[in-house]
Amino acid sequence: MRDLTQGGLEHLALNWATVRERWDLAQTIEGCARHGIPGIAPWREPVQAMGAAAARRRIKDAGLRVSGYCRAGLFPAADAAGLQAAIDDNRRAIDEAAALGAECLVILGGGMPAGSRDLPLARRQAQDGLAAILPHARACGVPLAIEPLHPMYAADRCCVSTLKQANDLCEKLDPYDDGGLGLAIDVYHVFWDPELEREVQRAGAAGRILAFHVCDWLVPTRDMLLDRGMMGDGVIDIRRIRGLVEAAGYAGLIEVEIFSRDDWWRRDPEEVLAVIAERYRTVV
Amino acid sequence: MRDLTQGGLEHLALNWATVRERWDLAQTIEGCARHGIPGIAPWREPVQAMGAAAARRRIKDAGLRVSGYCRAGLFPAADAAGLQAAIDDNRRAIDEAAALGAECLVILGGGMPAGSRDLPLARRQAQDGLAAILPHARACGVPLAIEPLHPMYAADRCCVSTLKQANDLCEKLDPYDDGGLGLAIDVYHVFWDPELEREVQRAGAAGRILAFHVCDWLVPTRDMLLDRGMMGDGVIDIRRIRGLVEAAGYAGLIEVEIFSRDDWWRRDPEEVLAVIAERYRTVV
Repeated sequence: MRDLTQGGLEHLALNWATVRERWDLAQTIEGCARHGIPGIAPWREPVQAMGAAAARRRIKDAGLRVSGYCRAGLFPAADAAGLQAAIDDNRRAIDEAAALGAECLVILGGGMPAGSRDLPLARRQAQDGLAAILPHARACGVPLAIEPLHPMYAADRCCVSTLKQANDLCEKLDPYDDGGLGLAIDVYHVFWDPELEREVQRAGAAGRILAFHVCDWLVPTRDMLLDRGMMGDGVIDIRRIRGLVEAAGYAGLIEVEIFSRDDWWRRDPEEVLAVIAERYRTVV
Repeated sequence: MRDLTQGGLEHLALNWATVRERWDLAQTIEGCARHGIPGIAPWREPVQAMGAAAARRRIKDAGLRVSGYCRAGLFPAADAAGLQAAIDDNRRAIDEAAALGAECLVILGGGMPAGSRDLPLARRQAQDGLAAILPHARACGVPLAIEPLHPMYAADRCCVSTLKQANDLCEKLDPYDDGGLGLAIDVYHVFWDPELEREVQRAGAAGRILAFHVCDWLVPTRDMLLDRGMMGDGVIDIRRIRGLVEAAGYAGLIEVEIFSRDDWWRRDPEEVLAVIAERYRTVV
């Protein structure tokens, strides 16, 4: 397990959403560089606004890596045209991720379309959508990182709810280990899972851990979407999970992604980044 | 699969918590009888206040069955004395359930003690606690129904988060199928689970489905604890899940348990029971 307590921040990355209410993408790139944070995970909207090629130049000039590009997937749709539109949009996201030099493209399963109660159908659509885009992702050299989201988002955001489900998807869609498909593991979404250890090992054994995200689970959690905690302020044993992930072979960046409408999003990002750096050393 | 659309409410039960803000236990017993609801699931506090023997008399006189007694378990503790206190309290709950003639005692895993981040330890304590009380439950003829709660409660309420985990616990603690141990399956807690079908079948094959609870998952859900929906108002395919549970052999009561601070708890229970009866026929 890597020792983060000494020295620099060489394995740290910042997801732009953590400071999205205060900093645009350019400010976030500069902020990361200024704080010695070597990785960044941008979202599509600001990248599209800046242009992916321009964004790549800025990020590269700042000496940063792109830990992941957020986000695509979101396949389930009310009809075939909707699913096809999602697939087309995913192809564009892959092109953007390639232009950006992203280490992976983060894939969310998507929720059930409005009015639907058919979660198994949504899951089949997510699988079909992934199958449809995987060849393009491989051709572009952009690994797809399926990120299981917490089961409390299963209905309306992400029908891929567990590591086992994501691992099963990988095995189904990439049966010969041709690569280009794997997992993004976020402690917030998986810390509760009784199968955590087994499924992390399984993903690692197949070389499929593509990203590792951290934040914390607050007790109480006041909002299901926008009340994530800073590492150390909640109940997740982050170091234990990082130990599992690294024992399984992961050696990539550790990305901080905090949605916190009433706390961290209101603070000066300079303070946010300083606290992240401190917690990276003491808690992560 | 049973046809609920015709005739009476012969498989319906009401969990007292559904009307707890307006009706005490005596009122709820009378209300169920008046509405033709043949089952009731009382909670410990009102039963203790009335006395279990008196509660049993009233319930029996009203012609009702007790679908389950809520609730025990909640084992994880900061130290051995705390765990022992929980075990002692569970023994009292078993005695009350026996006095009440309850068809099962609902068992929650419990959350991590304050200050703890050790979810695996909480899970070991839940297992140890169950092992400690199972002989007494068997001696009293009170089946223990482990109810996995939604993973969003894993930290602070219930470390048993999935059907698989509950099935695994049953196999560990009752390896020779001596009985007295099984599951309570609540659609709210399990509808998201990719392993739902498999684990319901597994529980049913072992004769371990002891209770079946219904309500609905609202989109959006505004409160993680107190914003459950009336059947039909949310996104759960309740009939599909009931079909799985009944195909797995369950033939018991269908218990309605709705925590709804801002909606159903504010309404006249006469209306709540009428709507439940209607949804039982049309949605469940």
